[in-house]
This record gives sequence, C-alpha cells and structure tokens, in this order.
Amino acid sequence: MRVSQFFVSTLKEAPAEAELISHKLMLRAGLIKRLGSGLYTWMPLGLRVLRKIENIIREEMNNSGAMEVLMPAIQPAELWQETGRWDVFGLQMLKIKDRHKHDFCFGPTHEEIITDIVRKEIKSYRQLPLNFYQIQTKFRDEIRPRFGVMRAREFVMKDAYSFHTNEDSLMQTYQLMYETYSRIFTRLGLQFRAVSADTGAIGGSGSHEFHVLADSGEDAIAFCPDSDYAANIELASSPTPPQSPSIPDGNMQKIATPGKRTCAEVAEFLKIPLNKTLKTLAVKTNDRIFLLLLRGDHQLNELKVRKIPFLSEFQLANEEDILDETGTVPGFIGPVGLNTCVIADQAVMNMSNFVCGANEEGFHLMHVNFDRDLKLPEYIFDIRNVVTGDASPDGKGTLEICRGIEVGHIFQLRTKYSKIMKATFLDESGCTQHMEMGCYGIGVSRIVAAAIEQNHDEHGIIFPAAIAPFQLAIIPIGLQKNPQVRDIVEKLYQQFLDARIEVLLDDRDERPGVMFADMELIGIPHRIVIGERGLKQSIIEYQGRKDHSPQAIFIDEIFPFISTKLCID
Amino acid sequence: MRVSQFFVSTLKEAPAEAELISHKLMLRAGLIKRLGSGLYTWMPLGLRVLRKIENIIREEMNNSGAMEVLMPAIQPAELWQETGRWDVFGLQMLKIKDRHKHDFCFGPTHEEIITDIVRKEIKSYRQLPLNFYQIQTKFRDEIRPRFGVMRAREFVMKDAYSFHTNEDSLMQTYQLMYETYSRIFTRLGLQFRAVSADTGAIGGSGSHEFHVLADSGEDAIAFCPDSDYAANIELASSPTPPQSPSIPDGNMQKIATPGKRTCAEVAEFLKIPLNKTLKTLAVKTNDRIFLLLLRGDHQLNELKVRKIPFLSEFQLANEEDILDETGTVPGFIGPVGLNTCVIADQAVMNMSNFVCGANEEGFHLMHVNFDRDLKLPEYIFDIRNVVTGDASPDGKGTLEICRGIEVGHIFQLRTKYSKIMKATFLDESGCTQHMEMGCYGIGVSRIVAAAIEQNHDEHGIIFPAAIAPFQLAIIPIGLQKNPQVRDIVEKLYQQFLDARIEVLLDDRDERPGVMFADMELIGIPHRIVIGERGLKQSIIEYQGRKDHSPQAIFIDEIFPFISTKLCID
Repeated sequence: MRVSQFFVSTLKEAPAEAELISHKLMLRAGLIKRLGSGLYTWMPLGLRVLRKIENIIREEMNNSGAMEVLMPAIQPAELWQETGRWDVFGLQMLKIKDRHKHDFCFGPTHEEIITDIVRKEIKSYRQLPLNFYQIQTKFRDEIRPRFGVMRAREFVMKDAYSFHTNEDSLMQTYQLMYETYSRIFTRLGLQFRAVSADTGAIGGSGSHEFHVLADSGEDAIAFCPDSDYAANIELASSPTPPQSPSIPDGNMQKIATPGKRTCAEVAEFLKIPLNKTLKTLAVKTNDRIFLLLLRGDHQLNELKVRKIPFLSEFQLANEEDILDETGTVPGFIGPVGLNTCVIADQAVMNMSNFVCGANEEGFHLMHVNFDRDLKLPEYIFDIRNVVTGDASPDGKGTLEICRGIEVGHIFQLRTKYSKIMKATFLDESGCTQHMEMGCYGIGVSRIVAAAIEQNHDEHGIIFPAAIAPFQLAIIPIGLQKNPQVRDIVEKLYQQFLDARIEVLLDDRDERPGVMFADMELIGIPHRIVIGERGLKQSIIEYQGRKDHSPQAIFIDEIFPFISTKLCID
Repeated sequence: MRVSQFFVSTLKEAPAEAELISHKLMLRAGLIKRLGSGLYTWMPLGLRVLRKIENIIREEMNNSGAMEVLMPAIQPAELWQETGRWDVFGLQMLKIKDRHKHDFCFGPTHEEIITDIVRKEIKSYRQLPLNFYQIQTKFRDEIRPRFGVMRAREFVMKDAYSFHTNEDSLMQTYQLMYETYSRIFTRLGLQFRAVSADTGAIGGSGSHEFHVLADSGEDAIAFCPDSDYAANIELASSPTPPQSPSIPDGNMQKIATPGKRTCAEVAEFLKIPLNKTLKTLAVKTNDRIFLLLLRGDHQLNELKVRKIPFLSEFQLANEEDILDETGTVPGFIGPVGLNTCVIADQAVMNMSNFVCGANEEGFHLMHVNFDRDLKLPEYIFDIRNVVTGDASPDGKGTLEICRGIEVGHIFQLRTKYSKIMKATFLDESGCTQHMEMGCYGIGVSRIVAAAIEQNHDEHGIIFPAAIAPFQLAIIPIGLQKNPQVRDIVEKLYQQFLDARIEVLLDDRDERPGVMFADMELIGIPHRIVIGERGLKQSIIEYQGRKDHSPQAIFIDEIFPFISTKLCID
C-alpha cells in the first residue's frame, strides 16, 4: 500500500482528554477517531489491526470446533425478563423502545439469545455438545467511558456459548477454551496470564480471566512465581494458619493520638510498624452495624465480604451510625468495650499487643490483646486482599502482585441459564435434563489498546508482528528527485507485494524526519530506508522497531534479509 | 466439515409467517433463526454465505481503492440535527436515550458521521479524492418488517462515501463504483441490472440502483432490450410526441353506466378498448383540489406527481372533497364542465373520442374531445408509469418491464451534505471550496435472500457457486456398516480438504433420502454419493445441483472430475 493512497493521519500531540498511553497513541497514530463519549470510528489503519486480531481468534475458535454465528445487536426485552436480568443488569444496559413502543436493548451480552435458540433446536443428547461463537458489536452504557477503546461503550467482542449433557463435557470444553485462549494470546504476541476469577454478574461456578500484563492495568493479579497459581486480587486468598498465641507485653493503655485517624498516621505517630495497628471498619446491613477488623497494612476486599451470606448487601456505615454505635467519630473506633458484632480477618487472629481506636475522639489503645482486653470475634473470615509475600495457597512459595488488563474471561455457567429458561434435552434413558453451559468472552477491540499498553516506547507503538497494520515500511529519501532511488524503491515494493508481504511505501513528499516519526508512531515492526547516499555504496538501511540503531544491508541481500526477519516474527 | 460437527438443522415445513420463497427456504434450510420482528440470527450455515458475499465485496472495493473503516452503530443526535435529518428521517430511525438522557440513534446510514470525520481531517485539495467504506450492521425500524432478511430491521450493509475536489472527480469515482458494483454482482453469480433511479431520502443529483432480477421483486424495472437503457419504473419515462389531432367521430353523449366505476368496468360495459377511457383522479394539496387525467390503461406514478412543485405534498381527495368539487361520487367524475385545475398526463393529449365520467352518479360521457367538449388542460406532465411497448427514451426500441430486488444503490450526493455540514477544503489557489460527495450502498444480508429468489427450485436453494456455504457434499450410503465405504469416503474427504475444497461430509446416521433432501435444500452446487453398490463397479455417483440425473464416475477419476467442475464454476 502507498501512503498516498491510504489514509495516514497522525497528530503531534494527543487530545487533552486522553489519559492512558494507549489512548494517546491510538489517537496520535490515527487508528481511531472519537465520535462521542465511548464511541470511536476505526480508521483504515486501526481496522487492519482489529481485523488481524479477529482473524486469529476466528481461526483458533474454528480449529477448536466452535461454530460462528451472528446474533442481532437489538434484543427483545422478553428474553431478558425471563432470566430477571432486564432489571438486574442496571443502567449499563442500553434500553430502547421501537416505533410500536415495544422494549428492546442493545445487547450487552448474548446468553439469553443463544439459550433461546438452543432450547428451540436441541431435543436430544445426541445433538450435544455444541459451541457457538460470534464476533460482534456490543454496547454497555458505562457511567464514565474512558481510556479510548479500553473502556468504550460500543465495542467488538468475541462471545462463545457451549451446551452440554453433563458437567464432564462442560469441563472438557472449558479446558479446551482455556487452551484455545492461551493459543490466541500467544499468537497475538502478547504477554498474558490466566487467573482464577470471580464469576460476577454473568454467574456460574468457576471462571478464569485472561490478562494482558501491563503496569497500567486496572486489575491487580496475585501470582506465584514458583507455581502456576494466579488469581485476580478480588479472589486471591492466602492461607493464614493460626500461630501460637504470643505473650502480652504489657497492660492495655489509652494514649492520646490527636488528629491521627488512619492506621498509617497512628503508626507513624507512635513509631510502631503499621502491621501492629488494627483497622476497624463499621458497616451496615438492614440497619444493623457490624465491625470489620483488618491488620493496619491490609486492604479490605469488598467482594469477599459480600460473600458472607448476611453481608451480601452491606454498605459502609455513615458518621451518624458510627456515633450511635460507638459514641465516637470515624478514625477512633475500635472493638474494645463494644457489644457490636465483630468480623475479623483471619490475619487479625495472629495479632497481639496491637493498637486500635479507643472509641473516644483523639485516643487509641495500645498493648491490646484478644481474650484479655476484648472477647474473641464472633466471626473469622478471609476479608482482605493478599499482598506481596503472602503464602501461595498451593503451598509452593509466596505471592507476588502484578497488574493486568482483562481481555478474556471464561465461565462455567453450569445450569444457571438452562434452568431458568428451561433449556432441556432428553438423555439416553429418555429423561429430561437441563443442559450444562459455559461461556467464553474476548474483548476484541480492547486487545488493541492492551497490546499498546504493553508494547510502546517514547516514539510510539511497537506492534507485535502478528497484529501490526503493516509488516514493513519503505522510506525513500528523494523519491521525487532521484530516478535511481525511484527505480529501486518501485522494484523492491513490487517484489515485496508479490511475496505477499504487507508493505507500506511512504511515497509522500515529506521530510525524512516526518516519515521516520510517523512509521515509528504507527508501530510498523520493520523499516528500510532507501536513499541516494546509501545506494552509492549499494546499501539500504534496515532498522527493526525495537532496534537502537540501523544496520546496512547490501541491496541484493535486502529481500532475503527481510523475508527471514518476517519468518522469525 | 462433517455434518456431525456442524450445525445443520433443516425443517420439512416453513413457519406459516414466511410468505416469500427465499424466506421460506432460508428458514427451512436453517440459514437463519427468527429472534423477533425483523430480527434474525445468522446460523453457521447462513453466516458462511453472508461472509462469502462480504469478502467478494471487500476485495472489489479494496481493488478500486476504497478504504475500509468501521463507524459506530450508535450515533449522537447532534450530527443528525445539523443536517436536519433527525426530524426528517421519521420513525424508521431508532432513537435512543443513554443513561444521561442524551439523544442517540442506531444508525440507519452514515453520511453525517463520515462527513464529520472528513471535515475535521481534510484541509487541502491534495488530500482528495478519498473513498471510505464499511461493512456494518444497520437498523431501520420498518413499519412492517417482512420477507425475512429481505426487509429486516437489523441488517448488514456495505456503505461507502467518497469526497472530491470537483464534479469531474466525483463522476470518475461514481463511474468506478458503477463498474465495481457490476463486477461484484457478476462475481456473486447473479443476474442483475443497473437502472437509473430516484435519489429518494438520501438526496443528490443522480443515482443508479442495482437490481437482482427475480419475478418476486418488489420493484418494477423498465428496460430496452435493444439498448442499455434501464430505469426503475418510478423514474422511467417514455417520450410521447404529440400526434396530429384526430377528427371527432360524433357528438359528446351522456350514457348510463350504472355501478361501473373503474375504467376497466366502463370499457367492458361499453365494449370499447381500455385506452379509449380517461381516468380522472382528484387530489388535494393545501385544501385546493386538482384533477389528474390519465389514459385508462395507464397507472399514476406518484413520485412523478410529487416532483410537480405545487403538488409535492399532495394526497388523494376524500369522498367529501370530491362531492364538494364535482357534485358527484368517485367513479363518475370527469374534467368536462368543471372549473377545477386539470393536470393531464402527456399521453392523454393524444386521446380523442374518449369516455370519461359525467360528474353524475351512474353516468359517463362518450365521444369526448379536447378543445371541443372541454378546454385544454392547464398543465401537461409525464405523471404515469411506462408500460411494455412504450418507446425507449433513447429512441432505440421499445421498453419492456421486469421485476427486480434492489441490492445496491449509488448516488451523486454532490454538495448536499458538505454545504450543510461545512465540509470544505482549500483548493490550489487557496480558496475554500465545498467537497463534492458520492455514496454507494449494498444490502449485504439482503443479497442472500435475493440470490435465493433468483435461484431455487422445488427441492430448495440453488446457490451460485461463489456464495454456496459449501462447494461439494459427500453423501455416503452405509458409512457406519461398510468399512470399504468408510475408507473411500474418509480418503476422498481428506483429499478434498487438502485441496482446500469446501466439502461437507454428511456423516449422520440418516436415511439416504434425508441426506439427499437436506443437501438439495441447502443448495450445495455439487454432490457425490458413495455407496456399496457403486463401489462394486468402482464408481461414484455425481450430480450437479441443477442436473436432472446423476452420472457415474470411476473412483480414480472423481477427484480430477470435481476439481474441473469447481474450476468452471
């Protein structure tokens, strides 16, 4: 492709609204244009990247026996009402009325639709298992769309849904999809990690997320470098075996801590380690107050708290609630001397001689010990986020934390949808059974952003070879003026085209600096520079996108040299 | 692909709601499943057809220098308000409010969006011409969606938009798109015709429709077999040179025609040719009544009437209006003796000694002549549909009428959108100019239905080779029981796969009749039958989908035989 016949439109500066590096670079490289909040047009250059990703996904899904379908974006409310998700899904779902005032939505996902098709089509165990997928446009009305295509409202998703006679069959396909996803992200050239995950709003019993690793990732991932354990921080747990009780080092003592409200402030003020402080959080559910206890250096894991049956709907208590219950203000509350029901994190049970709020403004208690200064907590649960250095739950080492961008998610839905929607089949003995289901999503358009978050430098994008919009850039110096340059450029360009190498020839009448900058910004993996000076010595300059400096290649060797480079990619 | 691993789900009978043959066959062959009114899921078999059509379109558009983009389906109201189409488009446009109560629509077309991108990106004449296209899901909220994917609400469309510095450049691209469309429909294997067309709601100055010819087509097309003239009947005209006035054959005479209201009834009753009767239609605009006169055998062309400036908003007069104006009831009105403003079709001016209503219930007038019994009409226009036998406007013969399904439409938009949206560029002398625009649509999903309307028989679909879901079906007889059959089937299947032939192996444990019927219904162009009886004589039975009977091919020759057949396709 010649740049003169292709729409390359780069910017020196990214628009101010772009925060994330991938968003900035995608706008600067002209891969996308903003139409509105969370709405983007894929320009020719960006669409080439998106299509490459789609095709790799499609090939691997087909190879794994999944069948491609295309379901409507617009879905009737009735099916969503059947599963109750019409109300549950909330404002993320874009609801629509047609001209007859019938209710529809722009599908945020397609469980209801595919289950409806399958329950009408499938009668017998002999027709199962089945795995349908689509690559399709979805809409989720995010409160605050941001980060470009990373969290857009309209986006491209690959969603797959499998149907089975029994759990074993589901587990087989689930495992196959796990492997298929691993192949897909490997082929895309991305560093990724599959992690155990919470099932969230989709529901079901087991799930894994696939994360592209990047420092800017929204999700924290706990993993064990010495084993294959990896889990989203939302779900990761660390065993906390009870230690033998330590001996109290003195009597409980009230101490003035004026204006010191957070554990960190108190620890600094008292010159004690943060992990010797106790964090007390008051929460409320059905107008009853509970105290949650955490070690001062630990963070509450909301999702874990919500899994405690009587706290599934909890919210933080407000100042008034806290005053009523403890007689003091937030920052100085503690479990000592109150009758409030207490839920302690496991790690708290190994604490002794700790500091906690005195339930009196401006005061904390020191040398506090369970079973002496206060009774043992009513409940002990794992309610914290794991931290670096925690033991891995598989006993094979300690955990580390990294950050990732979720680009895939696979779920064992089991019979969540088939029961409520009556998706049944007749088994071998003629009995009616509910189908087991799995579902498997990939955020196709989001992958473009994630790939850039992981692969960029100060000059721009460094696309992995498999998804680069072009494989090779030819930059001629003096194309218009020098017939020799023109001859060699045109001959090589044709030779690359004939070899089906995706080559972008920068035939604009631009300064070399502009062409270099554009090709680097766009992230084309390989480039050659053809100019008068080099040709005098029969050489062409080659530079890989990640190379620090160019190398000189003899003209006659450039074609085999590039071909070899592309084979290695 | 093995049928056992592919979702083939055929029906003996089409659901009652399907009227059109393509709709019936698409449902019976399981290409689509209905989700709701005008909403269909493309099942694996149907999606293969759709994707083949998409790919042919994509290849030809790319070859013609158009660049693929992907614009959002959800579009902000502001851009549509800018062109005024937010109100003009009517109920066909699906309007949506997001969570912040901002107005959006599900894009029925994308002129506003692409023009917005281009006006922001393009500064100079040197950046033009440009031609962007997308293959994308659109929504039009039809009052009465019907005929399956032929008139669905959600559908796949290829829409392209070109931008130019001047009209010549637009005309070049318009001509190139005309040729590209011709190549696309030729490659799709469809009989089609390009016809001059009205520009309708999209606007602009010139346009052509591309019609797949089929008896069931919604559109009537007038064409000249002796030239390349072809036009939608909405637009087709025939020159009607005035003839020398003929001599009145008697005095005007009132005659009783009790209960004879239509021209056909009157002609039959009076035993005169239909073309000797005059049809008088009363229409109304701004509370003023006009009489439209047509020859009795001609049909009114509403679109032509609306192009008469003072009748653009006309509607048919009701009985009360007619009684007020003529003193009689519909069926007996005529132009004689009234002061109403009269608009006559050109062909009426060559009528003499005709019959028309007497403005008295139960009576008509005979031997009526202009300039004797009534004054000449105030206005003479072409306001009728052409009919078979009319002179072609290019003077090269007479017109015939056929029926077609509109699958493509190209428009010269000129500066309609660029002026209203201020899409300008600087020309060579530094002056600001409005861009010239063209737009070019293809109804991608509709083509599947149109292809079936044109290509089917009593057994089912006969897909053109280029868009058939598979090229070859292998039907084994006794696959499970006979090891020799199994060996040969598996060997051949693999051989075809290796040759990249798209083969569907019916490995179900079904009766031969069921397999034959399914493969014919689905419309696979070639099939071979491999059974014990044939193998004893070393033969395999081959039958093309359009062949009346099978032919025997020696086993050793089947592979080259099929390969040759597929090359011819």
